[in-house]
Amino acid sequence: MEEEARKDTVFRLKIDRESETYEEFLEELRNQIQSGSENSLKAMLEGAHPADIATLFRDLSLEESLYLFRLLSHEEQSYTLIKMEEEGLDKFLDELSIDEISLTLDFNETDETTYLLSFLTPERRDQVLSKLSKSDSFEIRSQLGFRESSAGRLMSKDFATAKLGDNVRKGIINVRKKAKEIEDIYQIYVTDEDGVLKGFIPLKDLFLTPINTKISKITNYSVYSFHYDTDQEEVAKSFKKYDLVSTAVVDDLGRIIGRITLDDVLEIVEEEASEDILRMAGVSEDERLSTPILQSVKRRIIWLNVNLLTAFLSSTVVAFFEDTISQIVVLATLMPIVAGLGGNAGTQSVTVVIRNIATGDLTFSNWWDAVRKEFTIGCLNGLVLGSITGTMIFLVKGNPVLGLVVGAAMLVNMLVASLTGSLVPILLKAVRIDPAIASSIFVTAMTDVCGFFFFLGLATLFSRYLIG
Amino acid sequence: MEEEARKDTVFRLKIDRESETYEEFLEELRNQIQSGSENSLKAMLEGAHPADIATLFRDLSLEESLYLFRLLSHEEQSYTLIKMEEEGLDKFLDELSIDEISLTLDFNETDETTYLLSFLTPERRDQVLSKLSKSDSFEIRSQLGFRESSAGRLMSKDFATAKLGDNVRKGIINVRKKAKEIEDIYQIYVTDEDGVLKGFIPLKDLFLTPINTKISKITNYSVYSFHYDTDQEEVAKSFKKYDLVSTAVVDDLGRIIGRITLDDVLEIVEEEASEDILRMAGVSEDERLSTPILQSVKRRIIWLNVNLLTAFLSSTVVAFFEDTISQIVVLATLMPIVAGLGGNAGTQSVTVVIRNIATGDLTFSNWWDAVRKEFTIGCLNGLVLGSITGTMIFLVKGNPVLGLVVGAAMLVNMLVASLTGSLVPILLKAVRIDPAIASSIFVTAMTDVCGFFFFLGLATLFSRYLIG
Repeated sequence: MEEEARKDTVFRLKIDRESETYEEFLEELRNQIQSGSENSLKAMLEGAHPADIATLFRDLSLEESLYLFRLLSHEEQSYTLIKMEEEGLDKFLDELSIDEISLTLDFNETDETTYLLSFLTPERRDQVLSKLSKSDSFEIRSQLGFRESSAGRLMSKDFATAKLGDNVRKGIINVRKKAKEIEDIYQIYVTDEDGVLKGFIPLKDLFLTPINTKISKITNYSVYSFHYDTDQEEVAKSFKKYDLVSTAVVDDLGRIIGRITLDDVLEIVEEEASEDILRMAGVSEDERLSTPILQSVKRRIIWLNVNLLTAFLSSTVVAFFEDTISQIVVLATLMPIVAGLGGNAGTQSVTVVIRNIATGDLTFSNWWDAVRKEFTIGCLNGLVLGSITGTMIFLVKGNPVLGLVVGAAMLVNMLVASLTGSLVPILLKAVRIDPAIASSIFVTAMTDVCGFFFFLGLATLFSRYLIG
Repeated sequence: MEEEARKDTVFRLKIDRESETYEEFLEELRNQIQSGSENSLKAMLEGAHPADIATLFRDLSLEESLYLFRLLSHEEQSYTLIKMEEEGLDKFLDELSIDEISLTLDFNETDETTYLLSFLTPERRDQVLSKLSKSDSFEIRSQLGFRESSAGRLMSKDFATAKLGDNVRKGIINVRKKAKEIEDIYQIYVTDEDGVLKGFIPLKDLFLTPINTKISKITNYSVYSFHYDTDQEEVAKSFKKYDLVSTAVVDDLGRIIGRITLDDVLEIVEEEASEDILRMAGVSEDERLSTPILQSVKRRIIWLNVNLLTAFLSSTVVAFFEDTISQIVVLATLMPIVAGLGGNAGTQSVTVVIRNIATGDLTFSNWWDAVRKEFTIGCLNGLVLGSITGTMIFLVKGNPVLGLVVGAAMLVNMLVASLTGSLVPILLKAVRIDPAIASSIFVTAMTDVCGFFFFLGLATLFSRYLIG
């Protein structure tokens, strides 16, 4: 009755980087690696999930990682490679021999293999491909031919099918054949005699139906499929919207050539959702901890230089009122308040609008409502902050006109901030530019320029009440 | 050989808000609703996926939406409710009768039902529950008892199990029983005689094994499970890390009480990844387009007031150098340049660091490398921007000392920006505060204060070369 036969490794060892014992564990590993104690190491890593082993590699040197890697079974190696950080994977693979690589690839699905091979130089890629079976090699070469962020690159070529004219028995036989290669089959795809995709059948339906039933009788014809050149983001959006688990990928004639499952898409969903945060600040969305410094600098410095131009613009606005400032020096001390609040309020608006565009809540039918809402929020914020600031300035400096000028400038700047913050991303989206791209730089530029203009302009208008 | 019997609705009608024909479609719908032409409407909506119908409701009034809703079958209604926007769902459900609601719930899984019921007032909730079967009612009441963002609320109570001592035939019978209720079964869970979770069996393995085999022989014992009180984010992280498709939820004794599938988690992954963007700007992560204005203002104004305090701080720093400015007024025009660049460079650093903390790339073992990298980037940026700015100031104003002062202040501010930008989120995380919370407000405060201090301080030091 009890566990008579253990199937698959039991993952007992949880490796958690945030745990307090992690550092000790790493130290111990390093010591054992130094002394070359293979058996101790195998014992230490027993029950560790390949995803966790891949995590360890982040904190070990290349040599230490390779040493551990070579202690694993080929199946564990194949999974570990997939879960390793993209950055540095090319260097890691460069250290492995062609044989070592091709032996692990036996355990990968085609999209995983294609992914790994894309990190090799063309020569080594060819060498590895020549080690695989002719059919595998052909499949992978054709997959490498697809555009990099397309459905074709994301798909796995391992899927089970049945023809409309087959009966359930044949379908089950097809599943059995594929079951050895594919870990997770949720459904089989149904095609006509020419391989054109017609529908799908969830596995439970297939198995619970009498085996002489025709496939066509239990086929679900509302099947989702994507052309191989569809953008991966499009695919991800549909998975989310229609609660899909698995979809087919078809060629120009509608014939099924691959399948994409939800876990493939999960990473894309997460990446997409978090990339905006980087783009807004003018940072490359590919930037990771391991990105070389010069590469990081390259993208950032471009936007900082754009920022420099906009800063010179604000500076010019201030210079226009140099006379006023030389007479009322206290204005210089108040400039940071007006500009700073404007910048952050603008950032709040732009952030909300960008997120709503990304989730699809804000579209061309309701953009005006969104802008109007932000403007109203800007009014309220402006009234509150303007009153508080104006009052405080009055109390500190004793001049009510100064307080009024600051308060009024604050109000106007809040309005400008909310309008720019909401309109800039919408306009960018309308001309098909990514709304996140450096939007915070443009919005803070606008709020600075307008803030200084209104503040110093009002001060100039009422200068007689402010001098002295 | 052809499609002898159609199973399930064929989703032919794609409703796309971004398409040019969308507005016309909406207009036509509104007209038909006005004239009460039920048959035309049903024809217009034929083949539309409930997710797309839910999308339509966003652009129709409450009355129009209800009218369309009541034309759908109960099954379509159940799915549409799930895909509708959270905001406004309570108002929508308030308009439905108790009977209407309970009839649709027949088609929902328990976690979906629990989700929908949470939008009703307690009285109406009880009324609806009294319409369900005693066992369903009990299940949902107990699920509503779980903490709101816990695994217990996320799970579905519909799952298939088998005992270790059963044979495969019994397992298949259990699946058949559940198959009517559950759309997607990928695996069955294996328990001991007391219901304690022991493992799982992928559906294909179950069906491809001879029926007299003992369940225990084909059970995969490395099963992932979560205690019902686990945070949903924890669950989502594990799904991502270990490529899970389905996990069990267990009670304090380890007995399986529910299951969570990848599509449940997808939304959480996406929400988590994109919420940081809002928190950084000091906006509530719950803010949506439909959030009432006063509610939006509430959260934002708190952080803007914090910003006001930090702005007064910068203002005080500038006031400290008021004498210098009154002598060298041009300094006031250059202040925006130094402060503005510092703010955006700081935002770049803080954004990268926050993202790396969120993805798990930055942890307590490598935080120093991250800070060091940002500092180096800050140096390079500072040298480049400082040189450019200094040179331009020299060319425009003709004073080399002024150019040097600005350039040096720029360099120092870039260093400060990168240090603050990287350290602030790390420190917040270390004291277990969300690193994203208004971090951009704090970082820009630091860069403003330090920028003004160094710029005006250096200017004061070299004032004799700058006056006149």
